[in-house]
Amino acid sequence: MTSHAWNFMTSFLTYETNKSVVVKSWSVGIINRLVQLLIISYFVGYVFLYERAYQVADTAIESSVITKVKGFGKINSKIMDVADYIHPPQGEGVFSIITNIITTDNQVQGTCPEKDTKITGVCNTPVGYCEIEGWCPAEDDKKNTTTMAEFVNFTIFIKNSIRFPLFNVSRGNIQGDNFKCRYDKLTDSFCPIFRVGYILNELQQDVEKLASEGGEIGIKVEWICNLDEALDSCVPRYSFTKLNSPFEKNKVSKGYNFRFAKYYKALDGTDFRTLHKAFAVRFEVMVTGTARKFSLIPTVINVMAALTSIGMGTVLCDLVLLNCIKGAAQYKEKKFEEVSEAMIRAALTPRNTCSSDSLPLCNLRETGKIS
Amino acid sequence: MTSHAWNFMTSFLTYETNKSVVVKSWSVGIINRLVQLLIISYFVGYVFLYERAYQVADTAIESSVITKVKGFGKINSKIMDVADYIHPPQGEGVFSIITNIITTDNQVQGTCPEKDTKITGVCNTPVGYCEIEGWCPAEDDKKNTTTMAEFVNFTIFIKNSIRFPLFNVSRGNIQGDNFKCRYDKLTDSFCPIFRVGYILNELQQDVEKLASEGGEIGIKVEWICNLDEALDSCVPRYSFTKLNSPFEKNKVSKGYNFRFAKYYKALDGTDFRTLHKAFAVRFEVMVTGTARKFSLIPTVINVMAALTSIGMGTVLCDLVLLNCIKGAAQYKEKKFEEVSEAMIRAALTPRNTCSSDSLPLCNLRETGKIS
Amino acid sequence: MTSHAWNFMTSFLTYETNKSVVVKSWSVGIINRLVQLLIISYFVGYVFLYERAYQVADTAIESSVITKVKGFGKINSKIMDVADYIHPPQGEGVFSIITNIITTDNQVQGTCPEKDTKITGVCNTPVGYCEIEGWCPAEDDKKNTTTMAEFVNFTIFIKNSIRFPLFNVSRGNIQGDNFKCRYDKLTDSFCPIFRVGYILNELQQDVEKLASEGGEIGIKVEWICNLDEALDSCVPRYSFTKLNSPFEKNKVSKGYNFRFAKYYKALDGTDFRTLHKAFAVRFEVMVTGTARKFSLIPTVINVMAALTSIGMGTVLCDLVLLNCIKGAAQYKEKKFEEVSEAMIRAALTPRNTCSSDSLPLCNLRETGKIS
Repeated sequence: MTSHAWNFMTSFLTYETNKSVVVKSWSVGIINRLVQLLIISYFVGYVFLYERAYQVADTAIESSVITKVKGFGKINSKIMDVADYIHPPQGEGVFSIITNIITTDNQVQGTCPEKDTKITGVCNTPVGYCEIEGWCPAEDDKKNTTTMAEFVNFTIFIKNSIRFPLFNVSRGNIQGDNFKCRYDKLTDSFCPIFRVGYILNELQQDVEKLASEGGEIGIKVEWICNLDEALDSCVPRYSFTKLNSPFEKNKVSKGYNFRFAKYYKALDGTDFRTLHKAFAVRFEVMVTGTARKFSLIPTVINVMAALTSIGMGTVLCDLVLLNCIKGAAQYKEKKFEEVSEAMIRAALTPRNTCSSDSLPLCNLRETGKIS
Repeated sequence: MTSHAWNFMTSFLTYETNKSVVVKSWSVGIINRLVQLLIISYFVGYVFLYERAYQVADTAIESSVITKVKGFGKINSKIMDVADYIHPPQGEGVFSIITNIITTDNQVQGTCPEKDTKITGVCNTPVGYCEIEGWCPAEDDKKNTTTMAEFVNFTIFIKNSIRFPLFNVSRGNIQGDNFKCRYDKLTDSFCPIFRVGYILNELQQDVEKLASEGGEIGIKVEWICNLDEALDSCVPRYSFTKLNSPFEKNKVSKGYNFRFAKYYKALDGTDFRTLHKAFAVRFEVMVTGTARKFSLIPTVINVMAALTSIGMGTVLCDLVLLNCIKGAAQYKEKKFEEVSEAMIRAALTPRNTCSSDSLPLCNLRETGKIS
Repeated sequence: MTSHAWNFMTSFLTYETNKSVVVKSWSVGIINRLVQLLIISYFVGYVFLYERAYQVADTAIESSVITKVKGFGKINSKIMDVADYIHPPQGEGVFSIITNIITTDNQVQGTCPEKDTKITGVCNTPVGYCEIEGWCPAEDDKKNTTTMAEFVNFTIFIKNSIRFPLFNVSRGNIQGDNFKCRYDKLTDSFCPIFRVGYILNELQQDVEKLASEGGEIGIKVEWICNLDEALDSCVPRYSFTKLNSPFEKNKVSKGYNFRFAKYYKALDGTDFRTLHKAFAVRFEVMVTGTARKFSLIPTVINVMAALTSIGMGTVLCDLVLLNCIKGAAQYKEKKFEEVSEAMIRAALTPRNTCSSDSLPLCNLRETGKIS
């Protein structure tokens, strides 16, 4: 048994390595090294340094946003504060600042004439109007209004906490305790308090038009974090965008408005309401992010791809060596050793019978090509 | 020094290539080519053409949705317009159309009998009721109501702008200037205006039941974009889904409703309210998307995997060649060249001393196996 | 032509395999097998079993959340029910439970003295106050209030349906029909009904402080699904988090509050309002998820990386074999076959001319190294 185990170990503990042909030729050597240099440069420069393929990325960022707007303004000579102009009031990541309102006071359920005949009503008056059933009087959205020009001085405070679930890293966008700052991309790019006028200026918005028609503005908070570096360098970058921009070619759907009503009860218990057509600037805080961190699996895969690629460089060199340069046939003879079925068949027959059909093999054996 | 440099260059500018054994055998040749064909087909057909592994994908779509609903209806013989039945009013991506309301008018803070004894109150009346403290009278949600059947004719306009951050590509879902269209998956699949009845029909919803109990409906906007093609072919595809479907097996949690109140002040300053239990159809605009674009890294990795796989095909052929076919031993002899420690030891001893222990090596040398 | 085809087939149906040198040496053999073992262990243990690199992951989860809060409480001796304390009322994934309110009743538009001189007003009174224009009387947020302590007994019902778009798998978080349960991470971890007190207890929150100042709490619903297993094992895992935690070092931005107003009309038609500064606990239901499923492409890529890596193991062994052990030069001679340009040149000249400059080659030929 010991002998069996010994034999097994001897045959198991072997090492198989490729037999190589080393070609000492300047021309092929230069091509070989150049191709290798190219491949190594691509992998080191582009794959590893530029694209950082040794890291895994997490783009499934978890984010929580709270906003708070401050400021006072006047619409149609009425003072508006936060409770009046912010919708919804809870300080969400998507909120609207109302800048212009067309109000229709004291609407009650009933029938009244309506110019706009979208609704099928009875058109029995010779004046040209149709009777409609609904909240009367109907809204007249051609009314003159004065917009809230002061909204450019409002400030938006953004509190954003994020988490990268893959790496279990949490970050917040507030760093110091200075809450008197104002965001400025050059002088104070980490301040979480934004003056509306600054944002509009960055986007080159026509403030007058925006206030009267409404619009949509995106505030982007971008977290690009390299977690192989210090965590403190994982900070947000703010930018602004017109969310309306993909629709600029379209004629309709300019601006942004919505309708809401305030409901009242008369002394006799009948309901009446004030309808508001509110033109607003809708702010959307959009949080995106990518965190990257070293990971063994993509590193190994890419290193293997690199090494394999270097090996593939020989394919090109083989092409040159075996076809293009002088003495190619000789190189071919060196690189390839042929075995044909005839040779094998001959080898299987007894050695001393050099029959006529296996003659070439006998000759080969004599030249020392096969043992 | 020149001589040193020359020597270094000569030894550096070499080219190493594997020495190969070419087996001229139909049987192994056929197996070899078939295996290679299989592997190439898999990579070309499945990996590259079907799965498009030469591209990187971005699924972290940024999206902004604004909706606008239009239409009139009647609940409990009161005319309802957008300001009445849409919650929240700002035109967000998630909104509810109220289709049925149970109102409890003129609630004031006080104590009153309550049938539903969920709340711990004083039960001192022999009638069987318990006194509760709260808004009185308590809600009676068994009231008869008439639902808003007209909501099937309402239209929902969806304005969606998206961005793929990885490729910095922005798109909007509105293409032309025709805002009189209605979405139809066959005739007008790019129209961003949806008739509620069409959606319910597609989902085979019981409209009557939906209106009285409420429900949840998803409107999916799917952006599948191949950015290697023209950008104009990056368009959304709309589809509808019952968000309730994972819960269809459960008895409870059917429908959708929520409570809100309108607050009034009496002449003497006391507060009273009208409580609304609103049954609503909740629409959720869900934007998903994947953009794909050619990228060098996955392409190189997959090409390398392909080439390596082709090389791995030889493993199978080697198995056949070296074990299964006639003359396997001869092929093995051709492919493998053995070097044992004994041979090396012998080679290290002077050449002419063919001592007894190294006798096999001497014999080997004579057969021309080692030089 | 048949002959041509025959020749082509014969040359096409060949099989090329590397010529190998098999080293029968215990030392190199042991190194070789150890290196192979290491590489195989890494791939099998870490890459395939631990990181499950044979699967593709989908993290772009689609989610729809509906919440419903139940419970009664008292703020400033007024009974509050769901319609009073939930903002927004529609049962969204992000909602606030108001736990404390500072009300300012009967505000009308006008001018009044204001302690806080943030707003530029006319300061004409010697008392030290400034006149401001706005809603009067101004808010006095130093008022004493009684917070709603009962909110710890409220329950939050969460209905969450998700979908993994890549695999088209939909799941819901409700499994049975038992809606009397309460979530408990040990005894009932699938119950979708959460007692607020339980959550606060888990987070070790100071309830008193939270109720008076407000705060933010995240309810995480995590779907980690291995779709290679039974679909029933794809269930959510709930956890809780203080969303405020990244900001705990900062002095400001503690708590959470927002302002809203209720609007009334006096008999003469003038508007007045009650301003509410509401301190609330903001709950955010955060749904994350990853689904994994077997996929051919990453499997093939990783298997190829594994096989290539095993092949790369020879690089290390070659280093040892050709440099470190006794007889390295002999092994080198075995592994490498040199071809120099001189040899090729000699081979191209007629055989019998052994000129002086090609002498080494002639010698080589005699030793049987080249044929």
